[in-house]
Amino acid sequence: MARRLATPADPAFVFDLDGTLLDSVYQHVTAWQRAFAEVGVDLAVWRIHRRIGMSGGLLAQRVIKEAGAELSQAQLDKAEELHGRYYFEGLDWVQPLPGARALLLALSEAGVPWVIASSGKADEAEAHIEKLDLPRTPPYVCSADVDNAKPNPEMFLAAAEKIDASVLDCIAVGDAVWDMLAARRARMLGVGLVCGGYSAGELQQAHAFRVYLDPADLHASLDEIGVML
Amino acid sequence: MARRLATPADPAFVFDLDGTLLDSVYQHVTAWQRAFAEVGVDLAVWRIHRRIGMSGGLLAQRVIKEAGAELSQAQLDKAEELHGRYYFEGLDWVQPLPGARALLLALSEAGVPWVIASSGKADEAEAHIEKLDLPRTPPYVCSADVDNAKPNPEMFLAAAEKIDASVLDCIAVGDAVWDMLAARRARMLGVGLVCGGYSAGELQQAHAFRVYLDPADLHASLDEIGVML
Repeated sequence: MARRLATPADPAFVFDLDGTLLDSVYQHVTAWQRAFAEVGVDLAVWRIHRRIGMSGGLLAQRVIKEAGAELSQAQLDKAEELHGRYYFEGLDWVQPLPGARALLLALSEAGVPWVIASSGKADEAEAHIEKLDLPRTPPYVCSADVDNAKPNPEMFLAAAEKIDASVLDCIAVGDAVWDMLAARRARMLGVGLVCGGYSAGELQQAHAFRVYLDPADLHASLDEIGVML
Repeated sequence: MARRLATPADPAFVFDLDGTLLDSVYQHVTAWQRAFAEVGVDLAVWRIHRRIGMSGGLLAQRVIKEAGAELSQAQLDKAEELHGRYYFEGLDWVQPLPGARALLLALSEAGVPWVIASSGKADEAEAHIEKLDLPRTPPYVCSADVDNAKPNPEMFLAAAEKIDASVLDCIAVGDAVWDMLAARRARMLGVGLVCGGYSAGELQQAHAFRVYLDPADLHASLDEIGVML
Protein backbone atom coordinates (compact mmCIF):
# COMPACT_ATOMS: atom_id res chain seq x y z
CA MET A 1 0.00 0.00 0.00
CA ALA A 2 1.27 3.44 -0.88
CA ARG A 3 2.12 5.72 1.99
CA ARG A 4 -0.82 7.88 2.98
CA LEU A 5 -0.64 11.44 1.75
CA ALA A 6 -1.15 13.06 5.13
CA THR A 7 2.22 13.86 6.72
CA PRO A 8 2.91 13.06 9.45
CA ALA A 9 0.68 9.99 9.09
CA ASP A 10 1.10 8.72 12.63
CA PRO A 11 2.71 11.64 14.39
CA ALA A 12 5.25 11.09 17.12
CA PHE A 13 7.21 13.65 19.13
CA VAL A 14 10.88 13.81 20.01
CA PHE A 15 11.45 16.37 22.75
CA ASP A 16 14.67 18.06 23.70
CA LEU A 17 14.81 18.58 27.46
CA ASP A 18 16.96 21.61 28.47
CA GLY A 19 15.26 24.86 27.46
CA THR A 20 12.38 22.97 25.81
CA LEU A 21 10.61 21.19 28.68
CA LEU A 22 12.76 22.48 31.58
CA ASP A 23 13.76 26.07 32.27
CA SER A 24 17.39 25.10 32.74
CA VAL A 25 19.34 26.98 30.08
CA TYR A 26 20.32 29.99 32.19
CA GLN A 27 21.44 27.73 35.05
CA HIS A 28 23.65 25.84 32.61
CA VAL A 29 25.05 29.10 31.29
CA THR A 30 26.13 30.42 34.67
CA ALA A 31 27.45 26.99 35.75
CA TRP A 32 29.65 26.90 32.64
CA GLN A 33 30.82 30.48 33.22
CA ARG A 34 32.03 29.57 36.70
CA ALA A 35 33.58 26.31 35.53
CA PHE A 36 35.56 28.00 32.76
CA ALA A 37 36.67 30.81 35.07
CA GLU A 38 37.99 28.23 37.50
CA VAL A 39 40.21 26.65 34.82
CA GLY A 40 41.47 30.12 33.92
CA VAL A 41 39.32 31.18 30.94
CA ASP A 42 37.06 34.25 31.23
CA LEU A 43 34.40 33.98 28.58
CA ALA A 44 31.71 36.39 27.38
CA VAL A 45 28.56 34.71 28.65
CA TRP A 46 26.48 35.08 25.47
CA ARG A 47 28.93 32.78 23.66
CA ILE A 48 28.16 30.03 26.18
CA HIS A 49 24.41 30.64 25.84
CA ARG A 50 24.55 30.21 22.09
CA ARG A 51 26.27 26.80 22.41
CA ILE A 52 23.91 25.26 24.98
CA GLY A 53 22.20 22.21 23.50
CA MET A 54 25.43 20.74 22.22
CA SER A 55 27.00 18.06 24.38
CA GLY A 56 29.14 19.43 27.19
CA GLY A 57 32.38 18.29 25.57
CA LEU A 58 31.53 19.86 22.22
CA LEU A 59 30.36 23.09 23.86
CA ALA A 60 33.57 23.42 25.85
CA GLN A 61 35.75 22.87 22.78
CA ARG A 62 33.82 25.39 20.70
CA VAL A 63 33.60 28.28 23.15
CA ILE A 64 37.25 27.91 24.14
CA LYS A 65 38.22 28.03 20.47
CA GLU A 66 35.98 31.07 19.84
CA ALA A 67 37.60 32.86 22.78
CA GLY A 68 41.03 32.22 21.24
CA ALA A 69 42.08 30.32 24.37
CA GLU A 70 43.67 26.90 24.61
CA LEU A 71 43.01 24.21 27.18
CA SER A 72 44.49 20.76 27.56
CA GLN A 73 42.16 17.75 27.50
CA ALA A 74 42.61 17.49 31.27
CA GLN A 75 41.48 21.12 31.72
CA LEU A 76 38.49 20.56 29.43
CA ASP A 77 37.52 17.49 31.45
CA LYS A 78 37.93 19.51 34.63
CA ALA A 79 35.67 22.27 33.28
CA GLU A 80 33.02 19.71 32.36
CA GLU A 81 33.18 18.17 35.81
CA LEU A 82 32.91 21.59 37.51
CA HIS A 83 29.99 22.55 35.29
CA GLY A 84 28.16 19.42 36.45
CA ARG A 85 28.86 20.23 40.10
CA TYR A 86 27.76 23.90 39.86
CA TYR A 87 24.74 22.98 37.78
CA PHE A 88 23.50 20.45 40.34
CA GLU A 89 24.08 22.95 43.14
CA GLY A 90 21.52 25.26 41.46
CA LEU A 91 19.09 22.49 40.49
CA ASP A 92 16.42 23.77 42.88
CA TRP A 93 15.98 26.80 40.62
CA VAL A 94 15.18 24.66 37.59
CA GLN A 95 11.45 24.26 36.95
CA PRO A 96 9.34 22.86 34.10
CA LEU A 97 8.53 25.43 31.41
CA PRO A 98 4.92 26.64 31.21
CA GLY A 99 2.66 23.90 29.90
CA ALA A 100 5.33 21.18 29.60
CA ARG A 101 3.68 18.66 31.86
CA ALA A 102 0.16 19.29 30.49
CA LEU A 103 1.39 18.84 26.90
CA LEU A 104 3.10 15.53 27.63
CA LEU A 105 0.09 14.18 29.53
CA ALA A 106 -2.27 15.25 26.73
CA LEU A 107 -0.15 13.49 24.10
CA SER A 108 -0.03 10.31 26.18
CA GLU A 109 -3.75 10.42 26.76
CA ALA A 110 -4.38 10.77 23.02
CA GLY A 111 -2.05 7.86 22.29
CA VAL A 112 0.52 10.03 20.48
CA PRO A 113 3.95 8.50 21.17
CA TRP A 114 6.73 10.72 22.42
CA VAL A 115 10.31 10.36 23.61
CA ILE A 116 12.92 12.61 25.20
CA ALA A 117 16.29 13.22 23.53
CA SER A 118 18.71 15.16 25.72
CA SER A 119 22.33 16.08 25.06
CA GLY A 120 22.93 15.93 28.81
CA LYS A 121 24.39 13.11 30.84
CA ALA A 122 22.16 10.32 32.22
CA ASP A 123 22.05 11.60 35.83
CA GLU A 124 21.07 15.06 34.61
CA ALA A 125 18.37 13.72 32.28
CA GLU A 126 16.95 11.62 35.10
CA ALA A 127 16.91 14.53 37.56
CA HIS A 128 15.12 16.66 34.97
CA ILE A 129 12.56 14.03 34.08
CA GLU A 130 11.79 13.71 37.77
CA LYS A 131 10.96 17.42 37.89
CA LEU A 132 8.28 16.89 35.23
CA ASP A 133 6.36 14.82 37.80
CA LEU A 134 4.95 12.34 35.27
CA PRO A 135 2.97 9.20 36.21
CA ARG A 136 5.78 6.96 34.88
CA THR A 137 9.30 7.39 33.52
CA PRO A 138 9.04 8.10 29.78
CA PRO A 139 11.37 6.64 27.14
CA TYR A 140 14.49 8.77 26.71
CA VAL A 141 17.93 8.84 25.17
CA CYS A 142 20.86 10.88 26.46
CA SER A 143 24.49 11.51 25.61
CA ALA A 144 25.54 8.05 26.78
CA ASP A 145 23.35 6.43 24.10
CA VAL A 146 25.10 7.93 21.09
CA ASP A 147 28.59 8.60 19.81
CA ASN A 148 27.84 12.08 18.48
CA ALA A 149 25.68 14.71 20.15
CA LYS A 150 23.59 17.38 18.37
CA PRO A 151 23.82 18.93 15.82
CA ASN A 152 24.59 15.37 14.65
CA PRO A 153 21.23 13.67 13.99
CA GLU A 154 22.25 10.44 15.79
CA MET A 155 20.40 11.34 18.98
CA PHE A 156 17.09 12.10 17.28
CA LEU A 157 17.43 8.93 15.20
CA ALA A 158 18.09 6.86 18.32
CA ALA A 159 15.07 8.46 19.97
CA ALA A 160 12.80 7.57 17.04
CA GLU A 161 14.09 4.03 17.15
CA LYS A 162 13.40 3.86 20.87
CA ILE A 163 9.66 4.37 20.22
CA ASP A 164 9.71 2.55 16.89
CA ALA A 165 8.62 5.62 14.94
CA SER A 166 9.44 6.49 11.33
CA VAL A 167 11.50 9.67 10.95
CA LEU A 168 8.87 10.88 8.49
CA ASP A 169 6.32 10.82 11.30
CA CYS A 170 8.58 12.50 13.86
CA ILE A 171 8.28 16.08 15.00
CA ALA A 172 11.43 17.13 16.86
CA VAL A 173 10.79 19.93 19.36
CA GLY A 174 13.70 21.97 20.64
CA ASP A 175 14.82 25.44 21.72
CA ALA A 176 18.29 25.48 20.17
CA VAL A 177 19.59 26.02 16.66
CA TRP A 178 21.39 22.66 17.18
CA ASP A 179 18.05 20.89 17.63
CA MET A 180 16.67 22.35 14.42
CA LEU A 181 19.78 21.44 12.41
CA ALA A 182 19.76 17.89 13.81
CA ALA A 183 16.06 17.55 13.01
CA ARG A 184 16.58 18.59 9.41
CA ARG A 185 19.50 16.20 8.98
CA ALA A 186 17.36 13.42 10.50
CA ARG A 187 14.62 14.31 7.95
CA MET A 188 12.21 15.16 10.78
CA LEU A 189 10.07 18.27 11.05
CA GLY A 190 11.73 20.59 13.54
CA VAL A 191 9.58 22.78 15.78
CA GLY A 192 11.33 25.56 17.67
CA LEU A 193 10.44 27.06 21.05
CA VAL A 194 11.88 30.45 22.00
CA CYS A 195 11.73 29.70 25.74
CA GLY A 196 15.42 28.68 25.78
CA GLY A 197 16.50 32.17 24.78
CA TYR A 198 17.17 31.82 21.04
CA SER A 199 15.05 34.14 18.90
CA ALA A 200 12.41 32.99 16.42
CA GLY A 201 14.55 34.28 13.57
CA GLU A 202 17.54 32.18 14.56
CA LEU A 203 15.37 29.06 14.79
CA GLN A 204 13.72 29.77 11.43
CA GLN A 205 17.12 30.24 9.80
CA ALA A 206 18.02 26.79 11.17
CA HIS A 207 14.96 25.32 9.35
CA ALA A 208 12.33 25.30 12.08
CA PHE A 209 9.06 24.27 10.43
CA ARG A 210 7.18 26.39 12.97
CA VAL A 211 8.21 28.40 16.05
CA TYR A 212 6.21 28.76 19.28
CA LEU A 213 6.82 30.50 22.59
CA ASP A 214 6.87 27.52 24.95
CA PRO A 215 5.21 24.10 25.48
CA ALA A 216 1.88 25.74 26.36
CA ASP A 217 1.88 27.67 23.08
CA LEU A 218 2.81 24.52 21.13
CA HIS A 219 0.01 22.63 22.88
CA ALA A 220 -2.51 25.25 21.77
CA SER A 221 -1.20 25.10 18.19
CA LEU A 222 -0.86 21.35 17.56
CA ASP A 223 -3.36 21.45 14.69
CA GLU A 224 -0.97 23.76 12.78
CA ILE A 225 1.53 20.92 12.55
CA GLY A 226 -0.97 18.23 11.66
CA VAL A 227 -1.63 16.77 15.10
CA MET A 228 -5.25 16.52 16.23
CA LEU A 229 -5.73 15.51 19.84
CA MET B 1 26.36 77.82 6.77
CA ALA B 2 24.46 74.74 5.68
CA ARG B 3 25.03 71.59 7.65
CA ARG B 4 27.88 69.55 6.26
CA LEU B 5 26.78 66.60 4.16
CA ALA B 6 28.83 64.03 6.03
CA THR B 7 26.72 62.40 8.77
CA PRO B 8 27.65 62.17 11.54
CA ALA B 9 29.61 65.38 11.11
CA ASP B 10 31.25 65.35 14.54
CA PRO B 11 30.53 61.84 15.78
CA ALA B 12 29.84 61.21 19.44
CA PHE B 13 28.98 57.93 21.16
CA VAL B 14 26.30 57.15 23.72
CA PHE B 15 26.99 53.76 25.31
CA ASP B 16 24.59 51.54 27.15
CA LEU B 17 26.40 49.77 30.00
CA ASP B 18 24.78 46.38 30.88
CA GLY B 19 25.39 43.85 28.12
CA THR B 20 27.15 46.46 25.97
CA LEU B 21 30.32 47.35 27.89
CA LEU B 22 29.88 44.95 30.84
CA ASP B 23 29.03 41.24 30.68
CA SER B 24 26.30 41.64 33.28
CA VAL B 25 23.06 40.58 31.57
CA TYR B 26 23.04 36.96 32.71
CA GLN B 27 23.80 38.00 36.30
CA HIS B 28 20.84 40.37 36.18
CA VAL B 29 18.63 37.63 34.77
CA THR B 30 19.36 35.14 37.55
CA ALA B 31 19.14 37.85 40.23
CA TRP B 32 15.66 38.76 38.96
CA GLN B 33 14.61 35.12 38.82
CA ARG B 34 15.49 34.67 42.49
CA ALA B 35 13.89 37.97 43.48
CA PHE B 36 10.60 37.12 41.77
CA ALA B 37 10.58 33.60 43.21
CA GLU B 38 10.98 35.08 46.68
CA VAL B 39 7.88 37.24 46.26
CA GLY B 40 5.99 34.16 45.02
CA VAL B 41 6.17 34.38 41.23
CA ASP B 42 7.94 31.65 39.24
CA LEU B 43 8.83 33.05 35.85
CA ALA B 44 10.25 31.47 32.71
CA VAL B 45 13.75 32.92 32.62
CA TRP B 46 13.82 33.88 28.92
CA ARG B 47 11.02 36.38 29.56
CA ILE B 48 13.25 38.17 32.06
CA HIS B 49 16.21 38.09 29.65
CA ARG B 50 14.16 39.75 26.92
CA ARG B 51 13.23 42.66 29.21
CA ILE B 52 16.70 43.46 30.52
CA GLY B 53 17.70 46.97 29.50
CA MET B 54 14.44 48.48 30.68
CA SER B 55 14.49 50.11 34.10
CA GLY B 56 14.00 47.66 36.95
CA GLY B 57 10.53 48.95 37.74
CA LEU B 58 9.34 48.71 34.16
CA LEU B 59 10.86 45.25 33.74
CA ALA B 60 9.15 43.95 36.85
CA GLN B 61 5.76 45.28 35.76
CA ARG B 62 6.05 43.81 32.28
CA VAL B 63 7.23 40.30 33.10
CA ILE B 64 4.69 39.96 35.91
CA LYS B 65 1.95 40.99 33.49
CA GLU B 66 3.23 38.58 30.80
CA ALA B 67 3.19 35.76 33.34
CA GLY B 68 -0.43 36.55 34.13
CA ALA B 69 0.48 37.16 37.79
CA GLU B 70 -0.41 40.12 39.96
CA LEU B 71 1.76 41.83 42.53
CA SER B 72 1.05 44.78 44.78
CA GLN B 73 3.29 47.84 44.52
CA ALA B 74 4.89 46.77 47.82
CA GLN B 75 5.72 43.34 46.36
CA LEU B 76 7.12 44.92 43.19
CA ASP B 77 9.29 47.20 45.32
CA LYS B 78 10.42 44.21 47.35
CA ALA B 79 11.35 42.29 44.17
CA GLU B 80 13.35 45.27 42.94
CA GLU B 81 15.17 45.53 46.25
CA LEU B 82 15.95 41.78 46.29
CA HIS B 83 17.18 41.94 42.70
CA GLY B 84 19.64 44.63 43.72
CA ARG B 85 20.86 42.58 46.66
CA TYR B 86 21.32 39.33 44.67
CA TYR B 87 22.89 41.20 41.78
CA PHE B 88 25.52 42.82 43.99
CA GLU B 89 26.26 39.47 45.66
CA GLY B 90 27.31 38.13 42.22
CA LEU B 91 29.14 41.29 41.13
CA ASP B 92 32.53 39.56 41.18
CA TRP B 93 31.42 37.52 38.15
CA VAL B 94 30.73 40.63 36.08
CA GLN B 95 33.60 41.59 33.79
CA PRO B 96 34.03 44.07 30.92
CA LEU B 97 33.08 42.65 27.52
CA PRO B 98 35.92 41.96 25.07
CA GLY B 99 37.44 45.19 23.79
CA ALA B 100 35.28 47.56 25.87
CA ARG B 101 38.10 49.33 27.64
CA ALA B 102 40.29 49.54 24.51
CA LEU B 103 37.44 51.05 22.48
CA LEU B 104 36.69 53.73 25.06
CA LEU B 105 40.37 54.65 25.44
CA ALA B 106 40.81 54.81 21.66
CA LEU B 107 37.82 57.15 21.29
CA SER B 108 39.12 59.40 24.06
CA GLU B 109 42.58 59.49 22.54
CA ALA B 110 41.12 60.47 19.15
CA GLY B 111 39.04 63.22 20.78
CA VAL B 112 35.71 61.55 19.96
CA PRO B 113 33.31 62.42 22.79
CA TRP B 114 31.37 59.63 24.49
CA VAL B 115 29.00 59.22 27.41
CA ILE B 116 27.40 56.32 29.25
CA ALA B 117 23.60 55.98 29.49
CA SER B 118 22.50 53.18 31.80
CA SER B 119 18.98 52.17 32.88
CA GLY B 120 20.46 50.99 36.19
CA LYS B 121 20.56 52.82 39.49
CA ALA B 122 23.42 55.18 40.35
CA ASP B 123 25.28 52.76 42.69
CA GLU B 124 25.14 50.04 40.05
CA ALA B 125 26.34 52.35 37.26
CA GLU B 126 29.23 53.51 39.46
CA ALA B 127 30.25 49.94 40.37
CA HIS B 128 30.22 49.00 36.70
CA ILE B 129 32.17 52.02 35.54
CA GLU B 130 34.80 51.16 38.15
CA LYS B 131 35.19 47.73 36.56
CA LEU B 132 36.13 49.38 33.26
CA ASP B 133 39.30 50.63 34.97
CA LEU B 134 39.41 53.95 33.09
CA PRO B 135 41.89 56.76 33.85
CA ARG B 136 39.03 59.01 35.03
CA THR B 137 35.29 58.74 35.65
CA PRO B 138 33.51 59.38 32.34
CA PRO B 139 30.30 61.40 31.98
CA TYR B 140 27.23 59.25 32.55
CA VAL B 141 23.49 59.35 33.10
CA CYS B 142 21.49 56.71 34.95
CA SER B 143 17.89 56.06 35.95
CA ALA B 144 17.96 58.82 38.60
CA ASP B 145 18.58 61.44 35.90
CA VAL B 146 15.37 60.88 33.93
CA ASP B 147 11.68 60.34 34.52
CA ASN B 148 11.30 57.60 31.92
CA ALA B 149 13.74 54.80 31.22
CA LYS B 150 14.33 53.10 27.85
CA PRO B 151 12.65 52.50 25.44
CA ASN B 152 11.72 56.12 26.13
CA PRO B 153 14.41 58.28 24.43
CA GLU B 154 14.81 60.58 27.46
CA MET B 155 17.94 58.85 28.69
CA PHE B 156 19.79 59.05 25.37
CA LEU B 157 18.72 62.69 24.99
CA ALA B 158 19.99 63.50 28.49
CA ALA B 159 23.25 61.73 27.66
CA ALA B 160 23.73 63.76 24.48
CA GLU B 161 23.07 66.94 26.43
CA LYS B 162 25.61 65.89 29.05
CA ILE B 163 28.38 66.01 26.43
CA ASP B 164 26.78 68.85 24.46
CA ALA B 165 26.38 66.73 21.32
CA SER B 166 23.72 67.05 18.62
CA VAL B 167 21.48 63.99 18.33
CA LEU B 168 22.31 63.95 14.61
CA ASP B 169 25.93 63.31 15.51
CA CYS B 170 25.19 60.66 18.14
CA ILE B 171 25.69 56.95 17.66
CA ALA B 172 23.88 55.04 20.42
CA VAL B 173 25.46 51.64 21.10
CA GLY B 174 23.43 48.99 22.93
CA ASP B 175 22.71 45.28 23.17
CA ALA B 176 18.95 45.42 23.74
CA VAL B 177 15.96 45.98 21.51
CA TRP B 178 15.05 48.76 23.97
CA ASP B 179 18.30 50.60 23.19
CA MET B 180 17.65 50.45 19.45
CA LEU B 181 14.05 51.67 19.81
CA ALA B 182 15.14 54.51 22.10
CA ALA B 183 17.91 55.46 19.66
CA ARG B 184 15.48 55.66 16.76
CA ARG B 185 13.02 57.75 18.76
CA ALA B 186 15.89 60.06 19.77
CA ARG B 187 16.81 60.35 16.05
CA MET B 188 20.25 58.85 16.72
CA LEU B 189 21.90 56.07 14.75
CA GLY B 190 21.56 52.88 16.81
CA VAL B 191 24.34 50.31 16.69
CA GLY B 192 23.56 46.87 18.15
CA LEU B 193 25.92 44.44 19.83
CA VAL B 194 24.85 40.79 20.18
CA CYS B 195 27.01 40.25 23.29
CA GLY B 196 24.00 40.83 25.58
CA GLY B 197 22.22 37.79 24.17
CA TYR B 198 19.74 39.30 21.71
CA SER B 199 20.18 38.06 18.15
CA ALA B 200 21.26 40.23 15.23
CA GLY B 201 17.82 39.77 13.65
CA GLU B 202 16.01 41.12 16.70
CA LEU B 203 18.28 44.17 16.81
CA GLN B 204 17.87 44.80 13.08
CA GLN B 205 14.09 44.58 13.41
CA ALA B 206 14.38 47.25 16.11
CA HIS B 207 16.17 49.53 13.59
CA ALA B 208 19.82 48.92 14.38
CA PHE B 209 21.84 50.75 11.72
CA ARG B 210 24.55 48.09 12.02
CA VAL B 211 25.07 45.08 14.30
CA TYR B 212 28.41 43.85 15.67
CA LEU B 213 29.46 41.04 17.99
CA ASP B 214 30.93 43.02 20.88
CA PRO B 215 32.94 46.20 21.60
CA ALA B 216 36.06 44.71 19.99
CA ASP B 217 34.18 44.01 16.77
CA LEU B 218 32.68 47.53 16.77
CA HIS B 219 36.16 48.99 17.35
CA ALA B 220 37.45 47.13 14.28
CA SER B 221 34.50 48.36 12.19
CA LEU B 222 34.25 52.05 13.13
CA ASP B 223 34.88 53.16 9.57
CA GLU B 224 31.63 51.42 8.52
CA ILE B 225 29.66 53.91 10.61
CA GLY B 226 31.59 56.98 9.52
CA VAL B 227 34.08 57.24 12.36
CA MET B 228 37.77 57.47 11.45
CA LEU B 229 40.18 57.26 14.37
